[in-house]
Amino acid sequence: MPFPLEQFGQRVQLARQQLDISQEVLAERCGFDRTYVSLLENGKRNPPLVSICRLAWALNVTPAQLLDGVDAVEGEE
Amino acid sequence: MPFPLEQFGQRVQLARQQLDISQEVLAERCGFDRTYVSLLENGKRNPPLVSICRLAWALNVTPAQLLDGVDAVEGEE
Repeated sequence: MPFPLEQFGQRVQLARQQLDISQEVLAERCGFDRTYVSLLENGKRNPPLVSICRLAWALNVTPAQLLDGVDAVEGEE
Repeated sequence: MPFPLEQFGQRVQLARQQLDISQEVLAERCGFDRTYVSLLENGKRNPPLVSICRLAWALNVTPAQLLDGVDAVEGEE
């Protein structure tokens, strides 16, 4: 179950590195704490949709592009 | 700020209707309440990433496909 969070974190990190900006700058653009961005990139946070949309804006991608490669999760446990 | 939530809700509703399943069936597949699915489709909930990934699984699409057409959100208020 944490796996898509790790996939998402890797997507965020890659997009940030491609823009050549720090976690601090990304956090400022989103209105997040730097710590939150670090936890996100490590797959330790489960961000709500509006936060995903803010990250996408700050990273110059669409929300769909930011979820590219993130797997669906079987609902029944 | 609620706009991407409405866009997402419409995507979920469309994908559900294309599968020809009820809100009840979608909710069961995801392990959600039917009420939550109804609120989501009306743009009244801000679902976390793992819930988006469960909805995608239940709707036979990828999480990225489910966010197709959802706009980025400017971070600074």
